[in-house]
Amino acid sequence: MANRVAGPEIEKLIQLLAKLPGLGPRSARRVALHLIKKKDQLLVPLADAINQAVTKVQICETCGNIDSASPCTICTDRRRDPALLVVVEDVSDLWALERAGVVNAAYHVLGGTLSPLDGIGPDDLNIPGLLVRTAKGDIREIILAVNATVEGQTTAHYITDQLQNQAKDLQADNPTFERIRISQLAHGVPIGGELDYLDEGTLLQAIRSRTSFE
Amino acid sequence: MANRVAGPEIEKLIQLLAKLPGLGPRSARRVALHLIKKKDQLLVPLADAINQAVTKVQICETCGNIDSASPCTICTDRRRDPALLVVVEDVSDLWALERAGVVNAAYHVLGGTLSPLDGIGPDDLNIPGLLVRTAKGDIREIILAVNATVEGQTTAHYITDQLQNQAKDLQADNPTFERIRISQLAHGVPIGGELDYLDEGTLLQAIRSRTSFE
Repeated sequence: MANRVAGPEIEKLIQLLAKLPGLGPRSARRVALHLIKKKDQLLVPLADAINQAVTKVQICETCGNIDSASPCTICTDRRRDPALLVVVEDVSDLWALERAGVVNAAYHVLGGTLSPLDGIGPDDLNIPGLLVRTAKGDIREIILAVNATVEGQTTAHYITDQLQNQAKDLQADNPTFERIRISQLAHGVPIGGELDYLDEGTLLQAIRSRTSFE
Repeated sequence: MANRVAGPEIEKLIQLLAKLPGLGPRSARRVALHLIKKKDQLLVPLADAINQAVTKVQICETCGNIDSASPCTICTDRRRDPALLVVVEDVSDLWALERAGVVNAAYHVLGGTLSPLDGIGPDDLNIPGLLVRTAKGDIREIILAVNATVEGQTTAHYITDQLQNQAKDLQADNPTFERIRISQLAHGVPIGGELDYLDEGTLLQAIRSRTSFE
């Protein structure tokens, strides 16, 4: 109705754009107009990019990353330490760690956090896939790089329990199986952070995990 | 670089999305991930919609509106009053007036405002096209529905001058040519507006253009 004057093609485009995160009906109209005005510079290249994404992009069956190959570029990268596995909630977290370039490891993308209220259980996340990977015996440490939220921490505790149970079973079968070290990201004051703006939980963790100043 | 781990297709998609108004690099990544996760519900339909827009959408050669036909649906709509022409800066303004459903007229989209500093002169806007339309003699009133900004008002004054000069020339040639009435939108307190939050210019106009309360 809003765009009955603009033809069904534009109306459809606006409807779909309005479903994107961060865009509402008004900004979707703005984006659609901008795209149409910049047809050659923006609309046509975007059409190509989206068509490429539709045909080529897939989810890595090993780690859950999004890439044009499965197993993905990270899983097949031999320069990465295969004994170190970083577990993240979402592909965006993987991207954030890779942008920062702080760890040279393999990843495992859970695809969310446990949330009984929303009906999201272990099988809805990629937790069974994680246990398959850890059962192989070549992973020595798992960094649970989940968000510092209640859901993230609950998920981390659940995964820790599962990994410990698995380790017991594997050791019962094979006494030489070494336990995997499970670690989590440090909590504290973010770089550039001002104490005045930080919550009590962060300050408490920053005090508890204080390090010697030398 | 930011997404070297995610494959060139996704990197390209993020780059293009980041050029859309209201989206930056971070929100473009969020949108790209959302699109890829909702491949069937969102990415594929959006690809279709954009392809449709690329092939079908064009700019109306009469009024400057964006539609899948030229002349556009509005220009060919016989239920509209062809003697009343609403001049707007942008297609988004046309859409806003049509959503409100407040006028049953033809439109003329300027495509911007005069801006000597940005090198935008009368020929960069659709002002010559407007003069061609008014020369035909079947338009009786022009509503200059430009924004209440300095640029909008400057453009409105320029157009008024041009129309008055044209009217003189046409009357010299043909004494029966009737002058076109030129009007502008009323200024005042917007509905739901609180005086405390309005600027002095608006309040001044609201006082000057006060109407009898009966």
